[in-house]
Amino acid sequence: MAVYTDIADDELDRLLGSYDIGQAVACTGIAEGVENSNFMLLTDRDRYILTLYEKRVDPADLPFFLGLLDHLSERGFPCPKPVRTRAGETLVTAADRPAAIVSFLQGRWPRKPRPVHLAAIGDALAQLHLAAGDFPLRRPNALSLDGWSTLIGQSESGADTVLPGLSGELWREMAAIRTDWPRDLPTGVIHADLFPDNVFFMGDDLSGVIDFYFACNDILLYDLAICLNAWCFERDGAFNITHARAMLQAYRNRRPISRAEFDALPLLARGAALRFLATRLYDWLHTPEGAFVTRKDPLEYWHRLKFHRGVADTRAYGLDF
Amino acid sequence: MAVYTDIADDELDRLLGSYDIGQAVACTGIAEGVENSNFMLLTDRDRYILTLYEKRVDPADLPFFLGLLDHLSERGFPCPKPVRTRAGETLVTAADRPAAIVSFLQGRWPRKPRPVHLAAIGDALAQLHLAAGDFPLRRPNALSLDGWSTLIGQSESGADTVLPGLSGELWREMAAIRTDWPRDLPTGVIHADLFPDNVFFMGDDLSGVIDFYFACNDILLYDLAICLNAWCFERDGAFNITHARAMLQAYRNRRPISRAEFDALPLLARGAALRFLATRLYDWLHTPEGAFVTRKDPLEYWHRLKFHRGVADTRAYGLDF
Repeated sequence: MAVYTDIADDELDRLLGSYDIGQAVACTGIAEGVENSNFMLLTDRDRYILTLYEKRVDPADLPFFLGLLDHLSERGFPCPKPVRTRAGETLVTAADRPAAIVSFLQGRWPRKPRPVHLAAIGDALAQLHLAAGDFPLRRPNALSLDGWSTLIGQSESGADTVLPGLSGELWREMAAIRTDWPRDLPTGVIHADLFPDNVFFMGDDLSGVIDFYFACNDILLYDLAICLNAWCFERDGAFNITHARAMLQAYRNRRPISRAEFDALPLLARGAALRFLATRLYDWLHTPEGAFVTRKDPLEYWHRLKFHRGVADTRAYGLDF
Repeated sequence: MAVYTDIADDELDRLLGSYDIGQAVACTGIAEGVENSNFMLLTDRDRYILTLYEKRVDPADLPFFLGLLDHLSERGFPCPKPVRTRAGETLVTAADRPAAIVSFLQGRWPRKPRPVHLAAIGDALAQLHLAAGDFPLRRPNALSLDGWSTLIGQSESGADTVLPGLSGELWREMAAIRTDWPRDLPTGVIHADLFPDNVFFMGDDLSGVIDFYFACNDILLYDLAICLNAWCFERDGAFNITHARAMLQAYRNRRPISRAEFDALPLLARGAALRFLATRLYDWLHTPEGAFVTRKDPLEYWHRLKFHRGVADTRAYGLDF
C-alpha cells in the first residue's frame, strides 16, 4: 500500500468539530497521488477530500495553493473548493500536519482522450489563466530553467547509463533553450502539471481540474506547452496533430494569443519536454530498486524534446496564426 | 502509490452496463489493502466497492468468498453484499481479472478500541459463526499447522538474524502445538483475519466486517483465539484483560461454548500467535529493502506466543467457565 499518514478517530472527530460539514461516516485513503495523504471523506451531509500535507510540500506555499483554489472556484472554475472552518480558516492542522478539506469533484480522468476532451482542456486552461488574472499572491516557478539545471546536475553521472551521451545532450539543450527562452511574453498563474490524471470528465464534459501543487507564476503559454507534451503524443511516440489542433484552437478561442506567443510555442514545448525529462530522469536514478512505485521512462520526453526541436513553427501543431 | 490495476473508462462503462446500479460518477483507487485492487465506485444511485482480484487470490476460491458474503448478508450479518449483474452473476471479469462489485459499508475502523468495541467484536464473531452454519461450500485453511511449517521452513535461514535462536524455538513450538492441537472441537466457517482494520464502527456500533479473503473452515474457537491476539494486546506488549473479558463474554452470550472449547483457548491462542509470527517473519525476510510497504515486526507475535504459553488456563483471559 501507499505510504500515507493515518488519522485516528478522535483526531478526525475533533477536526470535523471545527467545521460545519456534519459527522464522518467514512474516511478512506486514496491510492492515487504520492505527494500527500488524501482521503475520501464521507459525512452524513456530503463528500469531501481531506488532504494531509506531507514533507514534499513546503508549508509556506499552502496559502498560495489554497488561496488559488478558493479564488478560482469563486469565479466558477471547476476546481476543488477549500471548505472553511467555523472560524473561517482553510488551512488547519491534523495528525501533526498541515491539512485542508476541499469539495469532492465528480468524474473520472480520461484513459483514452479524444479530440472533444482536448478541446475541453484547451478551453479550461484559458479559463484558468483568465480567472487567476487578479489573484494577488505570487509563487515563482521552482521548476523553471534554474531548477532544470540543478536536476540535470544531480543526474549527470547516471544519465549516460540511461542513454549513452545523454548527459552532454542535456547540457547542450539546456544552453540552447536558456539562450532563446522568451522574456517578454504574458505571464500569470499557471497550473504547470495538467496531465490526464489531473482532469476529470463526466462523459464528454470536463467536470474538474485537480492537483494544483505545481501551480506558480510563469509564462502563460508555457502551460499550454506542457499540455502539448502531456496530451498530444501517442503511446508509440507519434505526435497527434488532431489532439493538438483541438486543444490550441479551443485555448485561443477563449484567450486570444499574440504573434510573439504563437511564435514561441515550439521552444516553450521543447523546454517543457526538458523539464519533465529532468524530473523523470532524477526520479529514475534516485528511486530505490524494488520500491512499489512505477518509475516513468525518462526517454519518452527525450523523444518529445527532439520532436519539438525539429518543428519549423507552430503550424506543425495544427494551428495557423 | 500502491500497485493496483487501473480500469479504463470504456471498460468500466461496459462493466456497469451489465449491472442495474446506474452510471459511474467516480471510481477512486483505495490505498488500504495490498492483496487486491479496490476502488470506491460512486454511481448516480449509490456507493459501491469494486474489487479486481490480483494474483495473490486463487480464482478457484472466489465462489467460496463471494458465496459466503452473499450468504451472511442474506442473514443480516453486516458484511459487504455482492451485487448481481442482470444475468444474476456476482463474479465477473474486468481489466482481464476476476472482479466483483459489493455494497459499500459505512464506518471507520477503530484506531483506539475500547471495551464496548471488544464486546461488539465478540458478538459479531459468534453471529458470523452461527449465520455461516448452513453455508454449503467448504474451503480448507491453507494457513493451519502444515502451512505454518512451510512458512517457517522458508524463513529458517533468516530467522536467527531477526532473533538469535529463533529458528530452533519456532520448530520446538511447532512440534508442541502440533502434538496438543485439538481434534474434536466444533468447526465451521471462520473469518480468520478479524484485525481492527477489518471492522468498521459508527460511534460505538459495529457497522461492518470486511476482508473475508482468509475465511475458511476450521475450529470456531480458533477465530476467537486470533481475535485475542489481534485486539487484546497494548502497543507496549501488555495483555489487556478488560478487552479480552469483554470480547469473550460477548461471544459466549451469543454462542455458548463447551468445556473442551473453554479449555483449549490458550493453546489455540498460542497457535494463532505462531501463525501470524510465521507470516510476518516470512514477509519481513522476503520484502525488498526500500519497498514502500510497512513491514510489521514479527517479534510482536513471539512475545504474544510466550504470553499464551505461560497462561495456566482460560481464566487468565478474564473468563470463568
